Amino acid sequence: MPYDRVKFHRMLARDERRMGSYREAIRLAVKPDDIVLDVGCGLGILAMFACQAGAGHVYAVERTDVIGVARELAQANGFADQITFLHDDVRNIELPKPVDVIVSELISKAVVGQGMAELIGHCRDQFLRAGGIIIPHSARLMLAPVQSPERFTKLTFPSAAQYGLDFSLAEQMALNDTTSDKIKPDELLCPPQPTFHYEAATTEGPSLAGSAEFEFDTEATMHGFAAWFDAQLHESVTLDNHPPGITAWDNLYLPLPQPVAVAPGNRCSVQLSARDDADGTVLWRWRTSLTRSAAASASGATDEPQSFDQSTFFALPLTSERLGRPIP
Amino acid sequence: MPYDRVKFHRMLARDERRMGSYREAIRLAVKPDDIVLDVGCGLGILAMFACQAGAGHVYAVERTDVIGVARELAQANGFADQITFLHDDVRNIELPKPVDVIVSELISKAVVGQGMAELIGHCRDQFLRAGGIIIPHSARLMLAPVQSPERFTKLTFPSAAQYGLDFSLAEQMALNDTTSDKIKPDELLCPPQPTFHYEAATTEGPSLAGSAEFEFDTEATMHGFAAWFDAQLHESVTLDNHPPGITAWDNLYLPLPQPVAVAPGNRCSVQLSARDDADGTVLWRWRTSLTRSAAASASGATDEPQSFDQSTFFALPLTSERLGRPIP
Repeated sequence: MPYDRVKFHRMLARDERRMGSYREAIRLAVKPDDIVLDVGCGLGILAMFACQAGAGHVYAVERTDVIGVARELAQANGFADQITFLHDDVRNIELPKPVDVIVSELISKAVVGQGMAELIGHCRDQFLRAGGIIIPHSARLMLAPVQSPERFTKLTFPSAAQYGLDFSLAEQMALNDTTSDKIKPDELLCPPQPTFHYEAATTEGPSLAGSAEFEFDTEATMHGFAAWFDAQLHESVTLDNHPPGITAWDNLYLPLPQPVAVAPGNRCSVQLSARDDADGTVLWRWRTSLTRSAAASASGATDEPQSFDQSTFFALPLTSERLGRPIP
Repeated sequence: MPYDRVKFHRMLARDERRMGSYREAIRLAVKPDDIVLDVGCGLGILAMFACQAGAGHVYAVERTDVIGVARELAQANGFADQITFLHDDVRNIELPKPVDVIVSELISKAVVGQGMAELIGHCRDQFLRAGGIIIPHSARLMLAPVQSPERFTKLTFPSAAQYGLDFSLAEQMALNDTTSDKIKPDELLCPPQPTFHYEAATTEGPSLAGSAEFEFDTEATMHGFAAWFDAQLHESVTLDNHPPGITAWDNLYLPLPQPVAVAPGNRCSVQLSARDDADGTVLWRWRTSLTRSAAASASGATDEPQSFDQSTFFALPLTSERLGRPIP
């Protein structure tokens, strides 16, 4: 992600759902004279929302050079005296006193991806006063099986016949990687289930895990899962990127290694875990079991249960040099 | 670009125009027992095409970890003994003897972007035998004015009224940045003109420059330029990404800082330059002059000539720390 490019932050600024929900959450949470910490402030929009809500002072932390633009925007908007900008990793900073509110948008399209649990956990433990508020307050990873032949085919390589080359080894790797896209709501095969929960007050990073189970009620072909977040920013203010996603957040697609025929009464269980490193690497693992009912096997499909154990770790090109270094 | 992810290279492998054109160019260029150098080999596809064409030996150079996958693919395809993989920047390697053919796909959506001129120039001067062949042989940057209100609006920030924030400073920066997208052919306002030329045999990197002039024959609103490449890979084998682009290569959009009304007889001249650093940073500059005919001014538009001087350098967030370092 080009977090240091203004055009990336413009995309965020143009997302009315994101902007409106964050502005409302901050308006409700920030009391006059509150001290606020904005973690990963980008252009400083949440910091300026906090000023609009009456904050006494805001500490805005950003590790990329875009903080230079945030400083100038704060000046142009008359908030220069109210915001202190810190150009650093939030794990390196010190603050003069505890803060009342922590705000961030480290939430990624499927909750994890920018080290939110680890970084916000650090700020909570180091900087937040007892009883202080964290925005977002909580988030659930929502998951649903999808039927999406085009999406799956895009992950495959040319056949050996096409150019006289066998790509199967690379294809296996590609089928262990996630992709970002706007998934069509009619690709979802089952109602979504929450799979893991992030609670700003208690979650310790960097790993999150959970499981879900689905029952199919139609004949279909399953090609993987769609994932997204469903967050509570503060009290009644929510924000989600249910398919097809919103401007600022696509959905996440986790493929199966092969298309699987499913039928009414078949069940799919999945165990999902993610390691969300604060330095930007996320490793996903999804273990899927598909079990078939007697009805399904009567319809001609195999009645063998099928299990897959996939991980973006298997999608990483690993050279011997890299194996000599710590795995991200 | 995630050059070290297999899913990125899958996208390249699935582009039939790219694959077919490169395979044909290599088939025509490589003679039995030729020594071939593949610069930035990725999954090693061009190296394997060279083996199929009868190369005596191929040196395949790649600086990302994806070379680990290329090694395994070469083994799976029976080419392990024919290809030597070098995990390094091509500027650091040495070869035992001169090569007959250099192949690469360092060409980017608008010719520059991956340091092609500098890196291939280095390989030509250091490794290519007299009379040796370079693929691609040459490329032109094609440019055309576009009318594209949606594309332009996407670059703007919310109005001051919307959230009580003035983003004009950030918007000015965003309007100095290029974006990548598939531009619709009906967005082009004039026939495209070649603007600068890359000749593998003679071009010295890292900077390329040129100019073009257009005359409008309709009333329209101009929102910037579309740019793409038109390349000759070898002899009669060509490859281009004329709008709407192809799988592996989008088009490039260079905005004007504001929409400009144009009319029949109006002219637009542009001077375009790009500094294409081998380490991956590209800086564009485009200077545009619009002149109006008497007919245009009679139609009510201003007859003042308009000039704009834009650069992606103005889109870079520059902090004092960064200014202390060499500008990319």
